[in-house]
Amino acid sequence: MDDKIITLSHGSGGKLMQELINNLILAEFGNTILNRLDDSAVFEIRDENKKMAFTTDSFVVDPIFFPGGDIGKLAVCGTVNDLSMMGAIPKYLSAGVIIEEGFAIDDLKKIIRSMKQTLKDANVRIVCGDTKVVNKGHCDKIFINTSGIGIIDKSVNISASCAKPGDLVIVSGSIGEHGVCIISEREGLKFKSPLKSDCAVLNGLVKEMLKVTGAVHVLRDATRGGLAAVLNEIAELSKVGIEVQESAIPVKSSVKGACEILGLDPVYMACEGRLVAFVDKNKAQDVLRFMRNDRLGKGAKIIGKVVGKHKKEVYLNTIAGSDRILDMPIQEQMPRIC
Amino acid sequence: MDDKIITLSHGSGGKLMQELINNLILAEFGNTILNRLDDSAVFEIRDENKKMAFTTDSFVVDPIFFPGGDIGKLAVCGTVNDLSMMGAIPKYLSAGVIIEEGFAIDDLKKIIRSMKQTLKDANVRIVCGDTKVVNKGHCDKIFINTSGIGIIDKSVNISASCAKPGDLVIVSGSIGEHGVCIISEREGLKFKSPLKSDCAVLNGLVKEMLKVTGAVHVLRDATRGGLAAVLNEIAELSKVGIEVQESAIPVKSSVKGACEILGLDPVYMACEGRLVAFVDKNKAQDVLRFMRNDRLGKGAKIIGKVVGKHKKEVYLNTIAGSDRILDMPIQEQMPRIC
Repeated sequence: MDDKIITLSHGSGGKLMQELINNLILAEFGNTILNRLDDSAVFEIRDENKKMAFTTDSFVVDPIFFPGGDIGKLAVCGTVNDLSMMGAIPKYLSAGVIIEEGFAIDDLKKIIRSMKQTLKDANVRIVCGDTKVVNKGHCDKIFINTSGIGIIDKSVNISASCAKPGDLVIVSGSIGEHGVCIISEREGLKFKSPLKSDCAVLNGLVKEMLKVTGAVHVLRDATRGGLAAVLNEIAELSKVGIEVQESAIPVKSSVKGACEILGLDPVYMACEGRLVAFVDKNKAQDVLRFMRNDRLGKGAKIIGKVVGKHKKEVYLNTIAGSDRILDMPIQEQMPRIC
Repeated sequence: MDDKIITLSHGSGGKLMQELINNLILAEFGNTILNRLDDSAVFEIRDENKKMAFTTDSFVVDPIFFPGGDIGKLAVCGTVNDLSMMGAIPKYLSAGVIIEEGFAIDDLKKIIRSMKQTLKDANVRIVCGDTKVVNKGHCDKIFINTSGIGIIDKSVNISASCAKPGDLVIVSGSIGEHGVCIISEREGLKFKSPLKSDCAVLNGLVKEMLKVTGAVHVLRDATRGGLAAVLNEIAELSKVGIEVQESAIPVKSSVKGACEILGLDPVYMACEGRLVAFVDKNKAQDVLRFMRNDRLGKGAKIIGKVVGKHKKEVYLNTIAGSDRILDMPIQEQMPRIC
């Protein structure tokens, strides 16, 4: 690995690819399952009293390094979080990497080490992977797909279709930081109080929340399309109406300020370390208490409730005192946010 | 879905993305697990007397449509085959798609329908997915990642590290067609006998082979780097020597001819529907007989054997009568072959 840049031969199935795998991938991610280098990872799922969760996500974020994270951290967080949102304990991840010819191997190392640290934070392992190299100009730097497998206790039944009238809506922390951070970096905007992505693994927080038996009906991380998209998806899938108090939604002043300058709305801005939970109203205070045991749940707030009327619609009670429909985003606010 | 091309908004998490998912993805791939549209697919693995296989592969093939297949068929075949190579029964697939802004929706439909047909051939389901759209010029047309989960009977123990001295080496059919087809398409070469990719799902063939209890020690599909790369990987992982008869390797005359013109060697050319098996020498004839029950095993041939000497090396007994080391490919023969 004396090379400084990725060449097409690093993706050829030949000697250089073997070197890349041995000297970088296995050196960082190595474990008894991955090291076998078979066509599939093989493992046992011992306890039969479980369900399995399986998810996939491709990451194309631009820039690939940003305050609070990078594409590698994001790729692990995104899939760990998607598993966590089903109440699953994330176990095994795959990593499929597409690299542009000429990409700096030092940058690849940085990304891989960042993935390694995030895997450690989440207590998961990468057990299989794939590397492709495409000609210069055929992709932009690096794209990473992670898929993941998790185990769900059979008593857990969480789904975006499980919201019920009366449920309270909790958001785990201030919204929009990831999206605003990425667009600011891309546009070269500088703010007094620096913006940082909220990118984080949420499995520890979910573990705390699940200690309140049967309280959590829905969990979803507010990624593309932000809080507004997630609430609309849940209203649609659960066939319920949702009412949200704008004044209750936690938004950092730096995010508010940047959104004003950019003509964007924080409720549509992506988060990568925030979840929305729909919980039994009688257990909401217990859930909040447990959430605050985790660093990522300290800023958790109740922001609204599920109602019997205006099914499949989300209403925002604005700070100004009026009610308006909070719709799905129609236009792209920004591409390559994750 | 009146749109004719993919726009950035199709990847935004908003209304257009929902339309794309509902009207195209769910319309074609819909099943009870996928339709829930949760953050992860959830299912039960009932029989506890099983192991699981998990694999991932990204597909960046260029051109995306080629004789014998397209990127969608390839993406399903690749992952189904990687699971099959562990003796697993493929069950669930994920699909993560990265699309270039401006891509024709008609082409996306063609690809999705081709995936659907291949899923049917393999009897597997897509249970989770992800779509990203990147700005024009930030990727080349479309990239597809598929990850997959399969179930392995506990009695099956197949791995690239299980080759033993005395084992016979079987190849399931003529080699190199996929690689030669792709490069010919790309270079605009025309041959009298048209070349077609061998792209196919191998789980049916493997099912036949596993009927001979305990016979199969190693299975691997000969993709990037071709037969030569696979043999070298197995020699390395099993710490054995391998001897192959060049005259026994099935190569179509059209592939031989194209390789001569292009200055390429068929043993390094990728296949996408051919496997290499290392089998107990006393059961090799039985395995061959069962292979011929499957359309994809009709051309199966014994091409060599595992020896106790020259560990981790592959020797080719050439048609000319000399012996030479068959090495791993060093340089890229061609990028974006799969």
